[in-house]
Amino acid sequence: MRTTLDRRGFLTAGFGASAALAAPAPPPNVIMIYADDLGYGDLACYGSRLSTPNLDRMAAEGVRFTQFYSANPVCSPSRAALMTGRYPTRAGVPRVLFPKDTVGLPDSETTIAQALKTRGYRTMCVGKWHLGHLPRFLPTSRGFDEYFGIPYSNDMKPRPLLHNTETIEQQATLETLTPRYTEQAVRFIERSKDAPFFLYMPHTYPHIPLAASPRFRGKSPSGIYGDVIAELDWSVGEVLAALKKNGVDKNTLVMFSSDNGPWFLGSPGRLRGRKGSTYEGGVREPFIARFPGRIPRGQVVDGVGSTMDIFPTVAKLCGAALPANPLDGIDIWPLLTGRSRQLEREALLYFDNWNLQCARWGRWKLHLARYNAFAYGPAPAGGRVNLPLASPELYDLESDPDESYDVAPERPEIVKEITARIERMIPGFPREVVDAWQATRARRSNPSATGALPRS
Amino acid sequence: MRTTLDRRGFLTAGFGASAALAAPAPPPNVIMIYADDLGYGDLACYGSRLSTPNLDRMAAEGVRFTQFYSANPVCSPSRAALMTGRYPTRAGVPRVLFPKDTVGLPDSETTIAQALKTRGYRTMCVGKWHLGHLPRFLPTSRGFDEYFGIPYSNDMKPRPLLHNTETIEQQATLETLTPRYTEQAVRFIERSKDAPFFLYMPHTYPHIPLAASPRFRGKSPSGIYGDVIAELDWSVGEVLAALKKNGVDKNTLVMFSSDNGPWFLGSPGRLRGRKGSTYEGGVREPFIARFPGRIPRGQVVDGVGSTMDIFPTVAKLCGAALPANPLDGIDIWPLLTGRSRQLEREALLYFDNWNLQCARWGRWKLHLARYNAFAYGPAPAGGRVNLPLASPELYDLESDPDESYDVAPERPEIVKEITARIERMIPGFPREVVDAWQATRARRSNPSATGALPRS
Repeated sequence: MRTTLDRRGFLTAGFGASAALAAPAPPPNVIMIYADDLGYGDLACYGSRLSTPNLDRMAAEGVRFTQFYSANPVCSPSRAALMTGRYPTRAGVPRVLFPKDTVGLPDSETTIAQALKTRGYRTMCVGKWHLGHLPRFLPTSRGFDEYFGIPYSNDMKPRPLLHNTETIEQQATLETLTPRYTEQAVRFIERSKDAPFFLYMPHTYPHIPLAASPRFRGKSPSGIYGDVIAELDWSVGEVLAALKKNGVDKNTLVMFSSDNGPWFLGSPGRLRGRKGSTYEGGVREPFIARFPGRIPRGQVVDGVGSTMDIFPTVAKLCGAALPANPLDGIDIWPLLTGRSRQLEREALLYFDNWNLQCARWGRWKLHLARYNAFAYGPAPAGGRVNLPLASPELYDLESDPDESYDVAPERPEIVKEITARIERMIPGFPREVVDAWQATRARRSNPSATGALPRS
Repeated sequence: MRTTLDRRGFLTAGFGASAALAAPAPPPNVIMIYADDLGYGDLACYGSRLSTPNLDRMAAEGVRFTQFYSANPVCSPSRAALMTGRYPTRAGVPRVLFPKDTVGLPDSETTIAQALKTRGYRTMCVGKWHLGHLPRFLPTSRGFDEYFGIPYSNDMKPRPLLHNTETIEQQATLETLTPRYTEQAVRFIERSKDAPFFLYMPHTYPHIPLAASPRFRGKSPSGIYGDVIAELDWSVGEVLAALKKNGVDKNTLVMFSSDNGPWFLGSPGRLRGRKGSTYEGGVREPFIARFPGRIPRGQVVDGVGSTMDIFPTVAKLCGAALPANPLDGIDIWPLLTGRSRQLEREALLYFDNWNLQCARWGRWKLHLARYNAFAYGPAPAGGRVNLPLASPELYDLESDPDESYDVAPERPEIVKEITARIERMIPGFPREVVDAWQATRARRSNPSATGALPRS
């Protein structure tokens, strides 16, 4: 359809029947559902034996990514990246926050919610925030009109349930959290149906300790983890049903992912590593997106995506301006809509705290350092330590997704290319990253300080 | 065919054409090829992308097990179990031996080679022994007529290449080890073709540092690990070819397995854990057996087997008496020949040093303790520590082979049954095992000393 000026100078549509389409579409609603410690292999549509009919249907009605990455293998940094579209080391949250911490996501960062507020969105966060629990760091200070949830992980004490900044339960009852979160989400959809809205729903589960409501407890043949996943899946179904019931199903983008790989329970599928590791199992996550009429049905996307991409993608879709701070994510709408199979992007970096451990570029993943529990050789004293590898390891994720077969010696040109990219990127990071990078390089020349595999 | 006495009192066969079958078959030759740190997912016939045509053909001409277990997730104990048919904790080798050690497999233990010597077998060990490197512990003192190899792991120093007890190279050249081992094996077959023989061939690879001969180096698209596996596979092909060439192919049982799961490189397939862990990935191994005419072609066996079963199975097959020390393995000939799909057996126990960590019984695996790197909660100081779990975890290996979904709370009757079996078995083990078990039980009542998952 073309719009033209007619002889009388009026703006007319090229053909009448489509004129309605010319009316500006209302800004889309956006829902991001975020599980906690869910593995790449924990959903039926990703090969699990657990039962997840609602998420499977959501994937069948939308797209499912096979190479979608959390920006970090632990909770707080990964959430900082989702909220800001930036590396957690750049967004000021490089590590997990604890109840004793008095810090949080810095005010200098802009959240997706803040960006959407400028476009008149109603915003709510329901669930685990984990970007600072003092009032000035809570969702209601970071662009959300409303907050309901536990401000950090359910294995931390105390465990208050908050409404906005007010404690409504001193120790939240874990068994009914998921239905209460769901009820909050459904009510928010109901009362926001006439305004564009953004609902961010970071669930408390399947982070341990696990708990499910009586309706789900004891029902899965796979134990409480299966019960918990079944209840999360039910919750997703309730949210989708609420969209239909309130007539906004066709104008809502719904996304589902998780913050990092499985911890002690849960399955990373065939991937290596779990939560806390920058091997694939720690950072590759399910990602499902559904937007009827805008995102094609039943597509499987193999292109690389990251939680850092959510912000720029949503901002573009909703017409929100990007913040002044440069984003590290990219607009993945072409992947979501099937217009591109793969997007050009700079190397994706994986950090452990301030330490760069790996970089993904194209089909390749270069490992440079590793947390000592996963490294070769005697770990220095002091608990969790980042060990530089004496020589980098290179894995071809296309043929070797479980990172079993190092091909660094055979592909020096790839090692060199990725290393050069890293060297160009590092100076753009905060001083702590630059310092850690230089310390790593210095220690690499001392094999006893490295996680060196013996080479003959 | 029935043999009967005829009227004249002569022994006659029921029918003439089969009379030749009545002649006593010569005792079968036995070859056990044992890889070092090879993963469950490292062979093409087990789903790997690595190229292993000879092992794949061997599996196609024989049987391939999907649930075959090393008795321990590290080298020396796993070899002790193979050689003695007993738990390594019972055979006196509960941990890895190092060059500084002056101990080895105790004289009170009987090896397969010793048992077969009583039946007139020629015996040779080619490769990595790792059950004591002082002369009195070397293969030539433990039932083998001849030995050729490095007495322990290739990452240990010094690294002598021995012939019998004599050092023929101070630092073995790693690049040509596999072809030299192979040449030794082929020559042994040639000169032993008229006598029954037992060849034990524990390869040095794919233990790190990896090395391959020029013919294989740089040929695999999966890097040096792929090269090394291709050379091991070639070696298996050479051994099989030597059997044919020397006319003993039809009278030789050839077996292939590995001592434990993959270490830093290599793939456990979809299993959880690696070398050093009693999760499946540390202990479940490929097992392939071929014996033309005696073992059916192309069968996949899902029944549970263990390296401890090799001794009793081979002893029965070869007519050798069992030693006075009670064996922990069972005769798995009915599994090998397809006469049974699963055998009755007592719970299989998995130890870390003296500490019982898990028990497998039927489809279930009960986890009781875990090495701290894989456990929840702060690790006590002191490096590698065994942490009792505050409550046992139970995994259904049939539906959950990657041990992701604990069902202990849902199946208390199974937890109770396996626990009762353990309690009955433990007193039969050496004092160190009994003491460790009691210490574990005592510490379990103190959550801070355990790898306790938080339960709500």
